[in-house]
Amino acid sequence: MASLAWAAKPDPVTKPAKPVSSSADIIKNSPDSDWRELDPENTLVMTLPQGQVLIELAPRFAPRHAANIRQLARNGYFDGLAVLRVQDNFVAQWGDPDADDKAKARPIGSASSQLPAEFSVALQGLPLQRLADVDGWAPLTGFVDGMPVAADPKTKQAWLAHCYGMVGAGRSDAVDSSNGTELYAVIGHAPRGLDLNITVVGRVIKGIELLSSLPRGGPNMGFYEQAGQRLPISTVRLLADLPLAERSPLQLLRTDSQTWTQLLDARRKRGGWYVRSPRHIDICSANVPTRPGSKASKL
Amino acid sequence: MASLAWAAKPDPVTKPAKPVSSSADIIKNSPDSDWRELDPENTLVMTLPQGQVLIELAPRFAPRHAANIRQLARNGYFDGLAVLRVQDNFVAQWGDPDADDKAKARPIGSASSQLPAEFSVALQGLPLQRLADVDGWAPLTGFVDGMPVAADPKTKQAWLAHCYGMVGAGRSDAVDSSNGTELYAVIGHAPRGLDLNITVVGRVIKGIELLSSLPRGGPNMGFYEQAGQRLPISTVRLLADLPLAERSPLQLLRTDSQTWTQLLDARRKRGGWYVRSPRHIDICSANVPTRPGSKASKL
Repeated sequence: MASLAWAAKPDPVTKPAKPVSSSADIIKNSPDSDWRELDPENTLVMTLPQGQVLIELAPRFAPRHAANIRQLARNGYFDGLAVLRVQDNFVAQWGDPDADDKAKARPIGSASSQLPAEFSVALQGLPLQRLADVDGWAPLTGFVDGMPVAADPKTKQAWLAHCYGMVGAGRSDAVDSSNGTELYAVIGHAPRGLDLNITVVGRVIKGIELLSSLPRGGPNMGFYEQAGQRLPISTVRLLADLPLAERSPLQLLRTDSQTWTQLLDARRKRGGWYVRSPRHIDICSANVPTRPGSKASKL
Repeated sequence: MASLAWAAKPDPVTKPAKPVSSSADIIKNSPDSDWRELDPENTLVMTLPQGQVLIELAPRFAPRHAANIRQLARNGYFDGLAVLRVQDNFVAQWGDPDADDKAKARPIGSASSQLPAEFSVALQGLPLQRLADVDGWAPLTGFVDGMPVAADPKTKQAWLAHCYGMVGAGRSDAVDSSNGTELYAVIGHAPRGLDLNITVVGRVIKGIELLSSLPRGGPNMGFYEQAGQRLPISTVRLLADLPLAERSPLQLLRTDSQTWTQLLDARRKRGGWYVRSPRHIDICSANVPTRPGSKASKL
């Protein structure tokens, strides 16, 4: 049954002596206290023709950018703008197609045009759920607030890692040239070489497939060559600004929970279909699960 | 100029003392001897409605599977079959939608229905272009014949790594249940946990974006739920069986070349737009360049 090739059915030959709990079982048995509601003041809802992309901002790592993006969304800045660039195995990027034309560029209203670079934060005091697994890109890795984080005890700095689905603020040559008006999401193998080179502002928590499945742009870094190829953005709203009736309640697993620790371990120690456990993960190889929230969680 | 966010223009503030050669310059200055022609007997041409996907087989790592896939292509086995599954950040998979129905399944003709698992090969004697960079998934990594390879000196085995664009042969629970009739390509962050669990048969060398940009399938591991959602495959041919006029000549950079070593080093030591060099790469973070071949190379 080749079409069931990936089913994790138990195999008598390869089954480990001690059965490994499946991720589905771990999630099913998780206590409610291991889940959290979305913070409506910290969640963006980007509406595309195909559906909604939910982005959780990372104010702990990029407070100025998070605040500015929140303001831009409140001002309706992104409404009617477009996805401008989709480069295969790299990023999808959106913003104002006329950003370079002062006469036509969308005004940013009360938002700031200039922000400091926010490439890293102090490691000290950060509630890092550390991974023991070796990472080639950084001496230390783990999770904070559901986000993949890398750190260096020598420099005492920590930063968000460019894993699949992470969202950053495009910049020009100057390190402080990003202000959140142009954003990108990672849609390929983690381009960790970007870490510490650009301000990462959050993570797509739902709907990344709407961006990752877009047609790729042209040879110039994936920018669409024709205006008609761009994907229009209907609106980008703060979840807090959406009427309650329009919010899809969603919960995120806490990455400081026992359930998350168990899920990571289940990925290291694979059973069922797997004949060899990798005994390793990287911070980019596990997605934080979501589940439907209750009506009451439509805060 | 936010839309130029990724341009690698020199920045007086961040420019390193010694200019780093750009990848474009390294490729431009490469000697012809660092490039190789495709082997027409070892290259599959999959024709989809949107264009062609070229796959280079890996007979050094999976000789039985490579030979069987070659035979299946020669028998026209894949013609009119379909992409059945696209799971976001994981794989696109193609084969016979009726594989599980003996009455309707496509006959495989002179190809073999049963093959041994080909998960690894002997490390000894393998012309591995070793990477010095630390890899969390395996003690040793590098490149062979343009393919990303991991190895373990203790077990004396080497294997193809599940990087973006790698192609494997779907299997059921039994390790020897793949025969090349059902294939998948990696379209997301490298799922290295699959390494040593399944037979990897080759690499997409052109056109991976045609697979990675397909609409994602349903919640059952990305399988399309409706037959009409599947993407039809017109034909899969060996390049050797295509008329000369229909072949697009293409050359691949040799991964045992000085140019490849320089390209990898340029990715470790970034200049221009980058303010911090990662001083690291992983085997999945660099793509082997291609260039148009000469007419004479239409072998």
